Amino acid sequence: MTTNQLVQQIKKKKSFLCIGLDVDLNKIPPYLLKEDDPIFAFNKAIIDATHHLCVAYKPNTAFYEAYGLKGWKALEKTINYLNEKHPEIFTIADAKRGDIGNTSTMYAKAFFEDLAFDSVTVAPYMGKDSVEPFLAFENKHTILLALTSNQGAFDFQTKTVDGKELYKQVLEISKSWENSKNLMYVVGATKAEFLADIRQIIPDSFLLVPGVGAQGGNLQDVCKYGMNDQIGLLVNSSRGIIYASQEDDFAEAAAMKAKVLQQQMEVELTN
Amino acid sequence: MTTNQLVQQIKKKKSFLCIGLDVDLNKIPPYLLKEDDPIFAFNKAIIDATHHLCVAYKPNTAFYEAYGLKGWKALEKTINYLNEKHPEIFTIADAKRGDIGNTSTMYAKAFFEDLAFDSVTVAPYMGKDSVEPFLAFENKHTILLALTSNQGAFDFQTKTVDGKELYKQVLEISKSWENSKNLMYVVGATKAEFLADIRQIIPDSFLLVPGVGAQGGNLQDVCKYGMNDQIGLLVNSSRGIIYASQEDDFAEAAAMKAKVLQQQMEVELTN
Repeated sequence: MTTNQLVQQIKKKKSFLCIGLDVDLNKIPPYLLKEDDPIFAFNKAIIDATHHLCVAYKPNTAFYEAYGLKGWKALEKTINYLNEKHPEIFTIADAKRGDIGNTSTMYAKAFFEDLAFDSVTVAPYMGKDSVEPFLAFENKHTILLALTSNQGAFDFQTKTVDGKELYKQVLEISKSWENSKNLMYVVGATKAEFLADIRQIIPDSFLLVPGVGAQGGNLQDVCKYGMNDQIGLLVNSSRGIIYASQEDDFAEAAAMKAKVLQQQMEVELTN
Repeated sequence: MTTNQLVQQIKKKKSFLCIGLDVDLNKIPPYLLKEDDPIFAFNKAIIDATHHLCVAYKPNTAFYEAYGLKGWKALEKTINYLNEKHPEIFTIADAKRGDIGNTSTMYAKAFFEDLAFDSVTVAPYMGKDSVEPFLAFENKHTILLALTSNQGAFDFQTKTVDGKELYKQVLEISKSWENSKNLMYVVGATKAEFLADIRQIIPDSFLLVPGVGAQGGNLQDVCKYGMNDQIGLLVNSSRGIIYASQEDDFAEAAAMKAKVLQQQMEVELTN
C-alpha cells in the first residue's frame, strides 16, 4: 500500500485508529476456547465489528509465537482474512525485528511476502545494514522504533549521544539510509511532549503511536504536537479496545470503544 | 541448563564452538528438497555429524519464519531433537527480540517454555522493563546484544553516551537489572580489540561471539582478549560450517570444518 492510499483512507473513514490484535487466551471470552482456532475466531469477530472505524490492524507477533505452531497459523489466517476482506486496511506486523543484512532480508521476506503485511516494526540498535534490507521492498513500510512508550525508554533512548538524545540520532541518521521514504517511526503517546521536537526532524513521516488508553497517553496532546498536513499519525489501542468485555458481546463492546476513539479523531481531523 | 554445566561441557569436549543453524533452502544440497521436511533433514544430518565437536547450536529464527508454518515446524522439530538426543548441549534461539513488559513475557514463554530453548538473544533498545521478563526464568539465559559484528554497529552502538560508548552503557546498566546473573552478551569477533575493555566491565559473563570465519573475525584474538577463568566464550560459526559442501557429503564436510575450529579451540584452552 502507498502512503497516499493510507492518507485517503484516513480522510474517508475520519479515523487514524490502529487496533492492536494482541490476543491472550486468558483474556478472551471463555466460550471461544471451544473453537478450533480460538485466536482467529476472536480476531475475525473483532475485525468484522471494527473495520469501518479503523484504518490499520497491528498483531503483535509475540502473542502468536507464544502459542507455537497454532499461534503462527492463527496469525497467517488473520492476515489472509484482512487482505482478502479488507484490502484497503493497512496491516502492521509488530515484530520489532532487526538482524544483520542477510538475516534481515529473510525477515523482510517473511513479513512482506510470505505473510503479505504492509509494514513491520524494526529495532534500530544494529544500524543501517540491519534496516536497509527492509527498506528495499516497494510500497512496503518499515516502522523503526524511535521513542517507545515504556519506562525503559529512559534507559538508553533518551540518553545524550554526541549532543543529542539517542532517539533523535535514530531519526536523524535513518533519514540518510537508502529508500528512507519507506520509513515510519514508533513514538509512544506517553511521551507526547517530545513530539514537537520529533516533528522538527521528520516533518513528513508517519508515526505509529502506541500508549493511548491503557498506558495513559493522551490523544489530544498527540494530535497537537504530532499531526502534520498529511495527518501523519496512526494511533494504536490494543487492550483498551479488544478486551472491553469478556462476555458474548465482546465484539460489540470493542466496536463501542473503537467508536469513541474514532469520534475523538474525527474532531481532531476537523480542527 | 546452569552456567556451570555449560563450563563442564566445554572442558569435557575441549570446545566452545556454537554452530549456527541458519538454513537457507537455496544453499542446502538440492537432493534434500525431495524430503518431507528438508530443513529438519538438513539440521538432523548436521547435528548427527557435529554434536561431539560443539557445545551449542544456534538457529536464527529468521530463517525459519521466512518459510512460514513449515519453517516454524522445522524449528520445533530441531529443538525437540536436540533436547531429546543431546540434552547436554546448550541451545540458543537467535531471535533478537525485545518488547514492552507483558509482550516480552510472551516471547520468553515462547522460547523458554513452548520451544524449551536454554537461551534467547534480546535487543537492549527498549531498556530494563523489556529485558527483565526474560531474566525471571530460572536456569535460562538472556543473551543481550551489546556490540554486534556488522558494519551498522558503528551507527549507534559505538557512539558516545554520557562519556561512554552506548554498548558499554548497555553492559554497565544491564548489570543492575534484576536477575542479571542470567545475562550473557553478544560481542562480534570482528571487533575483538574491544574485548579487553568489555572484560573490564563484565569480567564473569559469558559472551556469544559471532563473526569468526565468513565475517572475518579471528579466533586467537577473541581468546586473547575475551577468555576468562571460566572460559566465558561461545564462538559461533554458521555458513562457514554448514555450507562447507552442497553435495552428498555435506554433513561430513561440515564436521571437518567444525573439527578444525574445535582443534584451534583445544589449543587455546590448553594455553
